[in-house]
Amino acid sequence: MATIDYDYRIEDIKDKIEELDAKNIILQFPEGLKTDAISVSCQIQEVCPDVNIFLDADACFGACDLADNKLNHHVDLVVHFAHTPLPIKTETPILFIEAHSSADVYAPISEALSGLNPGSDTIGLITTTQHIHKLDDMINQIESAGFNVKTSSGIGTANGQVLGCNFTSIKNLDVDVIIYVGSGDFHALGVKLFTNKPVILADPFTSHARDIEKFHDKILRVRFARITKAKDAKSFGIILSSKKGQLRFDLALELRDLIRSHGFEAQLLNMDYISPERLLPYDLDAYVMTACPRIAIDDSAMYKKPVITPLELEIVLGIRQWDDYLMDEIVIHDEQSD
Amino acid sequence: MATIDYDYRIEDIKDKIEELDAKNIILQFPEGLKTDAISVSCQIQEVCPDVNIFLDADACFGACDLADNKLNHHVDLVVHFAHTPLPIKTETPILFIEAHSSADVYAPISEALSGLNPGSDTIGLITTTQHIHKLDDMINQIESAGFNVKTSSGIGTANGQVLGCNFTSIKNLDVDVIIYVGSGDFHALGVKLFTNKPVILADPFTSHARDIEKFHDKILRVRFARITKAKDAKSFGIILSSKKGQLRFDLALELRDLIRSHGFEAQLLNMDYISPERLLPYDLDAYVMTACPRIAIDDSAMYKKPVITPLELEIVLGIRQWDDYLMDEIVIHDEQSD
Repeated sequence: MATIDYDYRIEDIKDKIEELDAKNIILQFPEGLKTDAISVSCQIQEVCPDVNIFLDADACFGACDLADNKLNHHVDLVVHFAHTPLPIKTETPILFIEAHSSADVYAPISEALSGLNPGSDTIGLITTTQHIHKLDDMINQIESAGFNVKTSSGIGTANGQVLGCNFTSIKNLDVDVIIYVGSGDFHALGVKLFTNKPVILADPFTSHARDIEKFHDKILRVRFARITKAKDAKSFGIILSSKKGQLRFDLALELRDLIRSHGFEAQLLNMDYISPERLLPYDLDAYVMTACPRIAIDDSAMYKKPVITPLELEIVLGIRQWDDYLMDEIVIHDEQSD
Repeated sequence: MATIDYDYRIEDIKDKIEELDAKNIILQFPEGLKTDAISVSCQIQEVCPDVNIFLDADACFGACDLADNKLNHHVDLVVHFAHTPLPIKTETPILFIEAHSSADVYAPISEALSGLNPGSDTIGLITTTQHIHKLDDMINQIESAGFNVKTSSGIGTANGQVLGCNFTSIKNLDVDVIIYVGSGDFHALGVKLFTNKPVILADPFTSHARDIEKFHDKILRVRFARITKAKDAKSFGIILSSKKGQLRFDLALELRDLIRSHGFEAQLLNMDYISPERLLPYDLDAYVMTACPRIAIDDSAMYKKPVITPLELEIVLGIRQWDDYLMDEIVIHDEQSD
């Protein structure tokens, strides 16, 4: 379905290998591009016959999840494909090769514009990494149709860019409606929750636009159910990941103390590969996810016990109101990323 | 079934925490003991109220698989339960708390002795970590029954000790028959292959003894089938693990060059959590496992493509004879463990 027009930039990779005089490099692809890994490896080997190329076959879910320190310090360079860099300090140099989609963004934006309610004069525009190279053209398209457009950069995100765990670029936009260009309901949901504005998802892969309201309502019902179930919990597992871009060490300790101060048991669980079966040995009533914020929402149905976000825990413990429900975020500042 | 009489040695853990002035510790249990993790954590917390205790909920398969460098250098001490140390250099201090089984070893040894063929005068004795505290008593038992007993230490293994990946303690025993005390067919199979002697498995958990010959024949038939299938392969994936005790970096590069010198394609795949679905994106005909030697044998049926050991690759490439079939080993020397 997705038409990613991927330029693997073999020459740039070659230049970096030569610049670092790298002997051993590891290539890291997200799940959807791993089928290209062998072909890319062969292309690099052809122009750099002496370099040892390793494919990282572990799962990779984002720029938060870097193949840093693999193979016991033997690796001189990580080439990370598809994601934009986050300000994470690594021990191995990382070369990011971003992915740009060639999918048509203009048709779904047209559909979004034609369905707007009267009075929607000022539009907030937001998109994901793979479409952001077309941001200026999208702005022109919307302005040509007679609307005002506002975009903004965020903390660690470029102008007009949203991540599944970072919505800072849309929080302070004074607009009537927001158009999110991308395929993920999750991102649009976050935009909705953080802005409380109408949010239209313009999907370049289906070429259609739709209001996120229905999905928003459905997810909130699920979250309400999880929170309600977690209110019966007497013991909590707080899950941390050792992945550098997902590690919220201090937050995990704070949550542990918070839970204990409410008279409940709390255990800290490290898990680099997070999956339901990893929780089976532990007799705990509920889990708080401090690693990737999407897991609690996207994988909710896979877990027998409620898995909630840190902000949902606050509702469980009665220190946040349900009306103040927000998505969990991991906003990485340059300063904190060690 | 297994009766592990586990002394978790909370006082020793407390002493180590105090000695290191550790603020953050991580507890690492093998899969079979993970259900005890919360209880052990609570016991440690009681005597060390200020320490932050993390449970490592990732899979753990042996002392080769240490929770070193977890949580981005925040951890001051790893407490690793059940396995005996290997000479692996780590960046975080590791405290090993070994497991000792209380299962009766004498009844299955009696059964083993009573079934021996005439002329089996000198017996080699070998066992695993959890029974090794009874080695002297086992030797006494066998000598009292009128036999000679020989044991030996190996490279990185104690007197009379065998690991699933290290059979060095039995290779040079001049004996008529070998009694392996333990529950794992895999260990007995390795003893058989490395010695070519009759091997009797005396299982403390079933209280019975049995000859390993039948299992040996069955596994060899499976291996023969995998090797035959791998002979049709035109492309190979060489799997490495970043786990320090399973990383055979130089071997992987040698195998790559060897495969390429025979005119076939070879790709290096890093995988910390090795499972069949991780291989799905790669269009390769066969895999060579340089990580844990047990995976190719134990998990054989789970993989669609043949997964073979480095020594089996030599048979595939025609540089080793089938009659010289041996188990793969990872024998860690003090010198190489960096």
